Amino acid sequence: MLPKSRFAPVPQSAKAIGGGLTAPQGFLAAGVASGVKKRGKLDLGVLLSERPAVSAATFTSNAAAAAPVRLTRESSDCAHLRAVVVNAGNANAVTGKQGLADAARMRLLTANHLRLPVEQVAVCSTGLIGVTLPMDKIEPGIAAAAAALPGGGDTRAADHFATAIRTTDKHPKSGALEVTLPEGRVKLGFAAKGCGMISPNMATMLCFVTCDAAMSAEHWTELLHGAVRRSFNLITVDGQESTNDTVLGLCNGASGVQPGEEGRVLLGRALDAALLALAVSIVADGEGSTRTMRLTVTGASDAGKAEAVARAVANSPLVKTAFYGRDPNWGRIMQAIGQALGREGHTHLPAGIAYEDVLIVEKGQPAELDEVQRARLIEIMHQPEIDLTVALNGPGEQATVYFSDLTHDYVTLNAEYST
Amino acid sequence: MLPKSRFAPVPQSAKAIGGGLTAPQGFLAAGVASGVKKRGKLDLGVLLSERPAVSAATFTSNAAAAAPVRLTRESSDCAHLRAVVVNAGNANAVTGKQGLADAARMRLLTANHLRLPVEQVAVCSTGLIGVTLPMDKIEPGIAAAAAALPGGGDTRAADHFATAIRTTDKHPKSGALEVTLPEGRVKLGFAAKGCGMISPNMATMLCFVTCDAAMSAEHWTELLHGAVRRSFNLITVDGQESTNDTVLGLCNGASGVQPGEEGRVLLGRALDAALLALAVSIVADGEGSTRTMRLTVTGASDAGKAEAVARAVANSPLVKTAFYGRDPNWGRIMQAIGQALGREGHTHLPAGIAYEDVLIVEKGQPAELDEVQRARLIEIMHQPEIDLTVALNGPGEQATVYFSDLTHDYVTLNAEYST
Repeated sequence: MLPKSRFAPVPQSAKAIGGGLTAPQGFLAAGVASGVKKRGKLDLGVLLSERPAVSAATFTSNAAAAAPVRLTRESSDCAHLRAVVVNAGNANAVTGKQGLADAARMRLLTANHLRLPVEQVAVCSTGLIGVTLPMDKIEPGIAAAAAALPGGGDTRAADHFATAIRTTDKHPKSGALEVTLPEGRVKLGFAAKGCGMISPNMATMLCFVTCDAAMSAEHWTELLHGAVRRSFNLITVDGQESTNDTVLGLCNGASGVQPGEEGRVLLGRALDAALLALAVSIVADGEGSTRTMRLTVTGASDAGKAEAVARAVANSPLVKTAFYGRDPNWGRIMQAIGQALGREGHTHLPAGIAYEDVLIVEKGQPAELDEVQRARLIEIMHQPEIDLTVALNGPGEQATVYFSDLTHDYVTLNAEYST
Repeated sequence: MLPKSRFAPVPQSAKAIGGGLTAPQGFLAAGVASGVKKRGKLDLGVLLSERPAVSAATFTSNAAAAAPVRLTRESSDCAHLRAVVVNAGNANAVTGKQGLADAARMRLLTANHLRLPVEQVAVCSTGLIGVTLPMDKIEPGIAAAAAALPGGGDTRAADHFATAIRTTDKHPKSGALEVTLPEGRVKLGFAAKGCGMISPNMATMLCFVTCDAAMSAEHWTELLHGAVRRSFNLITVDGQESTNDTVLGLCNGASGVQPGEEGRVLLGRALDAALLALAVSIVADGEGSTRTMRLTVTGASDAGKAEAVARAVANSPLVKTAFYGRDPNWGRIMQAIGQALGREGHTHLPAGIAYEDVLIVEKGQPAELDEVQRARLIEIMHQPEIDLTVALNGPGEQATVYFSDLTHDYVTLNAEYST
C-alpha cells in the first residue's frame, strides 16, 4: 500500500489497490539475489512492459552523474523505454570508462534476455560510490531475473522488485492506485527507494511508475515531469543530491482506456498524490529522521527567491536540530530567511512565521501567545508532520519544501567507518 | 596569546606579545557584569581610543541584520570610530523599532560617558534573538564600564573586555602582535568571539582589532577588509550566517610610526595571519567540532565556481560526519562537487582529490594506495587539522575554505530546549 501522509491525500477519483508495479495490466516484474548484497538479500530487479510503451524519465543534475544515468539519459530512447534493470548495493558512480562499459553490458544482457532493442532498456544502480560493479555477480543475476519474469505478473513479484531496489530504507515504498476517468478505469503502480543511509555514501532516490492508460509520450511526459516537480524535487533530507537519482515511468496502454483532457487532469492528480506520498515517505524514512515538516514560503518577489528562502530554512542544521529538540525556535528560521535574502533583500521583511495555526512571529516581531496557544505549540512540536508558513512582505510568489529534522542517529549513521 | 594554527603561521616580521586589545598605545578597555548574563558573568565591554582614530568595519550580509548592526552601519561614521560598546547574552535582533531605539540609547549613553559625538561610537550585541534588551541592566552596565576605563590600559582590562564579549566559546580568542616595519615598530591587538552555541540561537562572530600605526582611513580599510576576506569570510561551521556578525578595527597613530608602501604590506601580512588564526580558532571551537579542515579547490573556470564547490563540500553534512568518523570518504566529496557544478559543469570533471600528501582520487577514479599510503591516510584522519585539495579539470581559478566536522555534540548542543 502507498505510504500515508496528511500532506498527500489520495484524490476522490482514485483508490488504493494491491499489486504495486504490476497492478496495471501488461507489466511483469522480478527481484533476485545476485550476491552484490550480502546474506542472500534481493538486490537486482527487472521490470518489463509486455507490449510497446511510452516512457518519461527525470535524472539527477549532479555533474558527477553515475554511469547508468549517463548511459540511459544519453543513449536510450527515453520516450519509448519498455524495460528497466536495477541493481542495489553498488552505485556504479565515479567508476570511469569501466563503469560506462559495465552499465552498457547490463543493458545489452537485459535487452538480449527480453528480446528488446537496447534503446528500450533503462539501467539504474544505487549503493556504494567509486567501486567497480562485480559483473561476475550481476550477469547471472540479470539472467535469473529475466528467467523469473514470465511468472512475474503477480503481487509477490512486484514486492520482490520493490525490495531488490532498496538499500537501507526502513519501510517499503510501493503501492498502486485505480483511477476512475470519464473514459474508464486505469491503474498506476509504484516502487520507490531512498534516503536510508547507503554506507559509505549518500542516499539515492529511485522511483518507478507503471500505468496502463493509452497516452502519447508527450502527454505521459507532461504528467510525470509535473508530478516530479511537485514531489521529489521539493524534498530534502540533508541537501545532498545523489549521483544516481532517477524517476522512470512506463505507460503501455494495455487497459485500452484513452484519457481525454479531463481524464488526463484526473490521472495527473492521482499521480501527483502518489509521488508526493512516496516523496514524503522518503523524508520520513530519512537518515535518523523523527519528523517531517512542510514549509510554505509566500509573498516573495519571484518563485526562485521563494524557493531559495524555503531551501535555506529546510537545510539549516540549526533549524533541523531545533525540530529534533521539539523547540519552536523561530529565531533560527528568521536567521536563515535573512541569509537567503541577503543584504538587498530586506524589502521582503518583516516576515511572519506560523507553526500550523499558531502565528508565532507577526510583522517581524514575536507574537504574544496566550496559555492556550503555548499549549497548542507544544502539541504541534510533538506531531510527526508539522506544517509551517513563512509570509514574506513581498508581491506573492510562493514555494513549498518538505524536510526532516537532524538527529543524533543521522550523525551516527553517517559517521560510521566505511574503510 | 593568539590561538595557534599550522594554517596561520605568524610572519617573520611579527612576534606575539601580551596585552591583547590594549597592547597598542592609546587604547583603553573594560569589561563588566551588567546582569544580562546570569551568575555575575562579564557581559558588557567598552573599548576606546584615547585619541582620534581611523576605523574600518565589515558586517553580516543577513537581511535580518540586528539593530546594532543596522545602527552602526547606517548612521555612524565607520571611517572615524573611536569607541565601541558591546553586550553579550542578548543579540537585539528581530526586535523591531524598540530594538533600534535601544541600540541608539546604548550608543548615546556610551558617547556621553566618553564625551564623544555619537557618530564615533559603534554598537555590537550577541546572544539571544527576538528578545528586547533589558535596558535597566544595560544602562548602569555602560556607566560602570565607562567608569572603569581610565585605569583600563592594562592586560587585565583587555582580558575583561575579551571575556565580556564571549558567549559559550570554550577558549578565549585574543592576543597581540608587535610588527617590525622599515619605519619602526607598531602593535596590533585582537579580541574575537564566535561559534560556541548561543542558546537558543545561532553563533555570532565578533572581532575587534586595535592598531597604533599612523595611517589613513583608506589604507587601514584596505588592510582590514583584505584580511577579513582571507579569514572570517572563508570559514564555516554550519553554513549559517548570523544576524550580528561584525569585524571592527580602530587605528589611532599613537606609535607615531607611519608605514610606507612596504610597511603596509608587512602590517597587512601580520593582520592577515592574526585574523586567520582567530578565524580558524572559531572553527576549531565550533559547536561540537573535533577537527578543522582546510579545503583548497583549484582548476575552476572562475573564482565564484571554485568557491561554490569549496562551500558545497564544506557544508555537506555527509562530508562533515565522515570527518567526524575519521572516514576518508571521498565519494561524498565527489558527490558534493558534482552537485555544485550542476549538469552543465561536467567539463570540470574528472577531478582529483588529495588528503594532505595522499592523492586518493586521480582523474575521477580511485587511486590504488599501497600499504604505506593507507597507513598515512589513517594517520591524517586523526590529525586535528587536515589539509584537503580538490583539483578540477578547468582553467585554474581557486578558492579556500576552512570547516569543522559535524558531531553528536553539535546535535546535542543545538537540540536542547530553549522554550
